[in-house]
Amino acid sequence: MSQPRPHVVIVGAGFGGLSAAKELAHAPVDVTIIDRQNHHLFQPLLYQVATAALTPAEIAVPIREVLRRQSNARVVMDRVSDVDHAACEVICDSGQRMAYDTLILATGARHSYFGNDAWAEHAPGLKTLDDAFRLREKILTAFEQAEILAETDPQAARAYQSFVVIGAGPTGVEMAGAIAELASSLMRDFRRIDPKDNRVILLEGGPRVLPSFTKSLSMRAAQDLRDLGVEVRLNTMVTGIEGDHVMAGDDRINARTCVWAAGVQASRAGDWLDLGSGHVTVDETLRPEGFDNVYVIGDTARFAPGDTPLPGIAPVAKQMGQFVGQRIAAHANGTAPPTQFRYHDAGALATIGRNRAVADIFGLKVKGFIGWLLWGAAHVYFLIGFKNRLFVVLHWLWSYITWRRGVRLIMHRE
Amino acid sequence: MSQPRPHVVIVGAGFGGLSAAKELAHAPVDVTIIDRQNHHLFQPLLYQVATAALTPAEIAVPIREVLRRQSNARVVMDRVSDVDHAACEVICDSGQRMAYDTLILATGARHSYFGNDAWAEHAPGLKTLDDAFRLREKILTAFEQAEILAETDPQAARAYQSFVVIGAGPTGVEMAGAIAELASSLMRDFRRIDPKDNRVILLEGGPRVLPSFTKSLSMRAAQDLRDLGVEVRLNTMVTGIEGDHVMAGDDRINARTCVWAAGVQASRAGDWLDLGSGHVTVDETLRPEGFDNVYVIGDTARFAPGDTPLPGIAPVAKQMGQFVGQRIAAHANGTAPPTQFRYHDAGALATIGRNRAVADIFGLKVKGFIGWLLWGAAHVYFLIGFKNRLFVVLHWLWSYITWRRGVRLIMHRE
Repeated sequence: MSQPRPHVVIVGAGFGGLSAAKELAHAPVDVTIIDRQNHHLFQPLLYQVATAALTPAEIAVPIREVLRRQSNARVVMDRVSDVDHAACEVICDSGQRMAYDTLILATGARHSYFGNDAWAEHAPGLKTLDDAFRLREKILTAFEQAEILAETDPQAARAYQSFVVIGAGPTGVEMAGAIAELASSLMRDFRRIDPKDNRVILLEGGPRVLPSFTKSLSMRAAQDLRDLGVEVRLNTMVTGIEGDHVMAGDDRINARTCVWAAGVQASRAGDWLDLGSGHVTVDETLRPEGFDNVYVIGDTARFAPGDTPLPGIAPVAKQMGQFVGQRIAAHANGTAPPTQFRYHDAGALATIGRNRAVADIFGLKVKGFIGWLLWGAAHVYFLIGFKNRLFVVLHWLWSYITWRRGVRLIMHRE
Repeated sequence: MSQPRPHVVIVGAGFGGLSAAKELAHAPVDVTIIDRQNHHLFQPLLYQVATAALTPAEIAVPIREVLRRQSNARVVMDRVSDVDHAACEVICDSGQRMAYDTLILATGARHSYFGNDAWAEHAPGLKTLDDAFRLREKILTAFEQAEILAETDPQAARAYQSFVVIGAGPTGVEMAGAIAELASSLMRDFRRIDPKDNRVILLEGGPRVLPSFTKSLSMRAAQDLRDLGVEVRLNTMVTGIEGDHVMAGDDRINARTCVWAAGVQASRAGDWLDLGSGHVTVDETLRPEGFDNVYVIGDTARFAPGDTPLPGIAPVAKQMGQFVGQRIAAHANGTAPPTQFRYHDAGALATIGRNRAVADIFGLKVKGFIGWLLWGAAHVYFLIGFKNRLFVVLHWLWSYITWRRGVRLIMHRE
């Protein structure tokens, strides 16, 4: 009789969790990956679903499909509610408890409204397909409302034609550019709306957009946004958000649609380990102090090799997952595990609508059309699954040639 | 100064309403088309969205996009709540009243539970994208639940693996076949579910499936369904539907998922005209008695040229819309309008999974693979918009070659 193989439980099938699972494909372990969703989501393109450029199926792939051929991996769709570390068990919403020999927590991040949780209702963020879906419906419905009101109540119509994006990191910048383009491409389908009343306002608390990029690329991105008609307001703090307006300092902006891209906080994994809420600080093996068989990776982890912590982006999560997978595989095989995680930074990219992007990649600064091509290639390359790549490319080409928005559907919940 | 042009208001942008609007493209009239949805839906393929074979964007197209180049047409997304016929005004949920010179009611049909409205909760029907979307989530989630319960509670797991379809018209037959295929194609992704426990049960009150087809095609369709593993139960009345079981006569079928395809009733248009609920009987000009400037077409109308009323299917609605459009255009142009609607019946088609279909078309009876090719060609041909055709063909080819289901996404509402 063979010995039972070590059981590795991975919570979260984002970039981190999934790359850890794949790294363990040939290791003598059993892997269970738990996620409350049934799909892995390519979050960097989520804003394109929210702006009706891509369909959900193009940026998401069922976790089971990704791991179909990995016979040592099992997928469970459930929500983890706690970890009983003394018993080495994960506790799920369904009531099941799952024993682990090694646990990998890769549960990502959620929005943070800096204590103003009431803002969440009026200024949704963008983390899940459902978020993107709702935002798409809200944006599209706003134009329908504006069309109805354009003649009888022009002021109300203008509030429906105004969109505020809060936060000018990559998500906010890409979102603002995409809304501006969607608005202008929609105009030929409407008869009464005055296109001059379309407004997209990007609010940023700091002194420049894309603060993680070099200053020259920030300047270029801000100019690109202005060229698209986006009003970029820097050094501006949001002081209130209601259903029909946003307060930017003392200035009232009448807008029916507001998107939150200003901040995230770590998932609840820290609470599960009794390490408090917020990021879980990990050492160079990506384990929190005092935990021998628990790894925390991706957006939930705080790993600060120099003086600054690594950013919460996909490449970091992916490399962390690979490192942890290699460690666990080495232990199971009785070989020497890697002892120190090192992040290989390939750079950063952000796009601002058709033809425009800024990229800081392998030390090279690229902008404009070449930057945009690079951005497209990088994103398509990282999409999991060949079919998705093929369809995204076809869809993009189609949209590029025709300027159409193929997925402008409003599906009412009744 | 030019005279104001007659205002034609069309309620409903299904096959009937949209074909009427297009027929009026070059007539000296102003057209307003009102729909509570922003899209025209290709309902005959809705079951493929519900079974994760197609994405919503592939079978729906924004109404505005269809009518973009028709400068005399305006699209309003609103819900009509009543008609004030004395004042010749349509009343909308938003509060707006819209005056008409001619009114076309093309508001379709909704499910009928034959007085058992409580069944709606557990046995949803399939009329809108949202219906299809919810059903897809329910079917996919059922397999996830079965996977969790397979070892701890096999009996509960089996109820999640059992699917009941009520009604064996084209929708019920296509739905049952598609669920059976989806179930079998999903199995290679699951580790614990016993595929032998998958059940699809098709319940029909009458003596055969596809009662509107010839008897030999009905027999063939029933055999095709059985070959796919569907249990076909004829002459069986449903007497109760709960969340975890269906009563078929005195027989209790434990099943967590139930789909209603047994009956429809006309929309509320009859009430708006004070003609009572149910179908609106129309004369050979497609107007109800006593109404000079109101047409009722498609599934809402009852037009019985011989002894039997025309069926509630897309080709009937489309031809009715064309006829009414021609009449109104002739009136506006001062030429002689057509005076008698005649339906040109090209036949009927139904598919039962990959490679199998039955068709009774132009008097020709076709089945098997040739029938299936014919079915595919006919449906793709009738899809509105080139892009949709292209993508549906690509998607089908892809699914056909790989047996994959590209849109198996569960988007939680939280």
